[in-house]
Amino acid sequence: MAQQKKMVEEITSMEEDFAKWYTDVVKKAELIEYTSVKGCMVIRPYGYAIWENIQKELDREFKALGHENVCMPMFIPESLLNKEKDHVEGFAPEVAWVTYGGNEKLEERLCVRPTSETLFCEHYKAIVQSYRDLPKLYNQWVSVVRWEKTTRPFLRSREFLWQEGHTIHATAEEAREETVRMLNVYADFCENYLAMPVVKGVKTEKERFAGAEDTYTIEALMHDGKALQSATSHYFGDGFARAFDIQFTDKDNKLKYPFQTSWGSTTRLIGAIIMTHGDNNGLVLPPKIAPTQVVVIPVAAHKAGVLEKAQELTDRISKVCRVKIDTSDNSPGWKFAEYEMKGVPLRLEIGPKDIENNQCVLVRRDNREKYFVSLDDLETEIPKLLDTVQKGLYEAALARRANMTYSAASLDELKDIADNKPGFIKAMWCGSRECEEKLKEYAGVSSRCIPFEQEHIADTCVCCGKPADKMLYWGKAY
Amino acid sequence: MAQQKKMVEEITSMEEDFAKWYTDVVKKAELIEYTSVKGCMVIRPYGYAIWENIQKELDREFKALGHENVCMPMFIPESLLNKEKDHVEGFAPEVAWVTYGGNEKLEERLCVRPTSETLFCEHYKAIVQSYRDLPKLYNQWVSVVRWEKTTRPFLRSREFLWQEGHTIHATAEEAREETVRMLNVYADFCENYLAMPVVKGVKTEKERFAGAEDTYTIEALMHDGKALQSATSHYFGDGFARAFDIQFTDKDNKLKYPFQTSWGSTTRLIGAIIMTHGDNNGLVLPPKIAPTQVVVIPVAAHKAGVLEKAQELTDRISKVCRVKIDTSDNSPGWKFAEYEMKGVPLRLEIGPKDIENNQCVLVRRDNREKYFVSLDDLETEIPKLLDTVQKGLYEAALARRANMTYSAASLDELKDIADNKPGFIKAMWCGSRECEEKLKEYAGVSSRCIPFEQEHIADTCVCCGKPADKMLYWGKAY
Repeated sequence: MAQQKKMVEEITSMEEDFAKWYTDVVKKAELIEYTSVKGCMVIRPYGYAIWENIQKELDREFKALGHENVCMPMFIPESLLNKEKDHVEGFAPEVAWVTYGGNEKLEERLCVRPTSETLFCEHYKAIVQSYRDLPKLYNQWVSVVRWEKTTRPFLRSREFLWQEGHTIHATAEEAREETVRMLNVYADFCENYLAMPVVKGVKTEKERFAGAEDTYTIEALMHDGKALQSATSHYFGDGFARAFDIQFTDKDNKLKYPFQTSWGSTTRLIGAIIMTHGDNNGLVLPPKIAPTQVVVIPVAAHKAGVLEKAQELTDRISKVCRVKIDTSDNSPGWKFAEYEMKGVPLRLEIGPKDIENNQCVLVRRDNREKYFVSLDDLETEIPKLLDTVQKGLYEAALARRANMTYSAASLDELKDIADNKPGFIKAMWCGSRECEEKLKEYAGVSSRCIPFEQEHIADTCVCCGKPADKMLYWGKAY
Repeated sequence: MAQQKKMVEEITSMEEDFAKWYTDVVKKAELIEYTSVKGCMVIRPYGYAIWENIQKELDREFKALGHENVCMPMFIPESLLNKEKDHVEGFAPEVAWVTYGGNEKLEERLCVRPTSETLFCEHYKAIVQSYRDLPKLYNQWVSVVRWEKTTRPFLRSREFLWQEGHTIHATAEEAREETVRMLNVYADFCENYLAMPVVKGVKTEKERFAGAEDTYTIEALMHDGKALQSATSHYFGDGFARAFDIQFTDKDNKLKYPFQTSWGSTTRLIGAIIMTHGDNNGLVLPPKIAPTQVVVIPVAAHKAGVLEKAQELTDRISKVCRVKIDTSDNSPGWKFAEYEMKGVPLRLEIGPKDIENNQCVLVRRDNREKYFVSLDDLETEIPKLLDTVQKGLYEAALARRANMTYSAASLDELKDIADNKPGFIKAMWCGSRECEEKLKEYAGVSSRCIPFEQEHIADTCVCCGKPADKMLYWGKAY
């Protein structure tokens, strides 16, 4: 009864209040629950199962490229964090500090890792001596803590789960290649698994990771026209190696500084899925990442043979997809709403009439299209349909992004778009930080990236009018 | 050259100094590296790969029994930790406290979770209302922190990786069943995967987990005759539910307190593997858990056709086992020592003579037995041999334990065994905490468990001489 009631409540519509729609979805699809610590959440089974699917695929890709998993401690002594100047300036204001162990005050306080460059550097200094020890291609799956003021589930939380790759190489060229290679892994994963198109590019100096020589990014566009930085890959040059005094003897018997990279993706990707595909009925999950791809719902389950048939079909199709049957005594209508809220890609309905006709009904979550499918064809039709849904979601997201991407040749034009049309704005930039800051102040947009795929929009900077040869994506961002 | 030198160094022998042997192995097999934070270590790729294999199998078993993974925050507010009296008394003295977020002092300090009962209780209070919401069978894979004074890699570290299961049930009976079921999952895993026999039993009141009504344990015997508590499973009754005011409406429409369990296993299992199977040449890994099961070493690799053949065999057998080829320019002798140190179960040697004879040499790590095997039979012989090694390790450990398990009918006898014969001591106990404390003081042994499999050794308590009907395992422990 309590549950029946719950599902009748509707979620806020996107158009009415996008932020509220988002938090309604994360709560009602049972992805998270809040806790008594602000900005720290419980990731519930359904949310965690999505993360496990993301992990499984990314981990497979990382390992196929020769990366190995390790695990660093969660604590960084203050003196270690302080070793690289830019890095500490970027992170020190937002770390959580441990000052007591039991009843004793620590001699040196420890921060809970906000990221682990310093720990990896300390470790590399211990284990890298010769060119034979290079490269090291390491990754870890852990949680990190950043003491943010404003928090939102998945998008900006004080603790979040992520993977952080950290690699160290004999040459700058090899490290640069690794940086771009991993950005491409992320981009391909987002497009192929999350059905989410991304813009690949490099960040401006202002937006770079603290301590990096270059930060590469993939930027996605959410339903509300805001950009979401979805993963980043950093090239460090030998800056960290010099700060931590990591040196190796090269083949020519000379001592040299190695070159490093790091790259990360987080549970923020779950936020990206929600805001890319979700609708006013709740979550919509791309089949490749959905914990349950097909939910089987018996209709008129009290009638002879229905439950048995539904169970038989479930067992059969479990060989070709991730399937779940709901045999609870809730009404079919309640169940339809429940699994729509949870974004299960396909619903299979089976009732007495269907059984008579040797068929069932398949309903797509994304567009509610119905298909009558012969029970003999389920093993071939379901994978096909899941594939169609996966592609359909990508195409829809791509079309939406195209509709929400604008070009601006003048400052007035840019300001007008920024004020009235949510989305990406492509515009030329002279390369000065001044213009970047002015656009933020005047039009409320930040630079998202200098995309790899450049276009010529004008000859001059959209801000200062000086000659410009770089096209940038600008936008409001999460 | 640097590497060649490294492997010539021998490790301390077990008989000379077991503790030093242990730390030599964890370092030289490249399982861990120390960091600048005492008690916090880097788990290196080879060590982490063992943990991943443990995780994979346990996670599969948990899920097969209906458990779901979740993720709780790492921080517990002091007021939340304080809610269950026994629990806070047990853990507060050894937690790490976060007192600052960035530059601001926190209003309430937060401890880094030493275990997550309190967090799960807070969550269960939020999501459990009706009997329909029960049971919840949750687990999480995270790291926890306990500010120990004395630390040793894997065995007792300030941060360690583990899984913690937390379940909540409508009835005491169901919760008790779950507690014992999960103990059996751990015991079967240790025996079947880690080739490590364990004694299953229940802890005395003195040794119970803080807040539990009963703590079940599996106890293994290490090479040096010390016991290692390898996993525990706790029955909480409704104590936590009452402390956290978790109630549900039962089928009879009455408000009731639910019953809870928790159960955990940690990276300590890696320490258990090392100290159960290792020898004076290093690590010995049970095949089922070894990251690499077979290492292929080309002999006289400069001769025509050897490398190609070695690679061809590697590709072939990769279909039946986890195999790695070492084509580095280190000498075969160096490689033999290296993979013995790392405990790879089987070594495959292939040289020009072997190729001529259409055979190769397989060498077992555990007893160095050599087998000449026809190249045509590798796909059948290797899995068979791995299976033989797995069983052999278990049998050897079982025999060693039998040889190191003693019975004592009197206090003098017990004291004599405790002083002179490392191992388990079986003896009767009257049930009083006084006798337990006296045995600790007088003979230096602690109660390991009251085993499920009872034996009748005498009619009276080994300590006080009063009537006793419980047989206990006593021992020195890690």
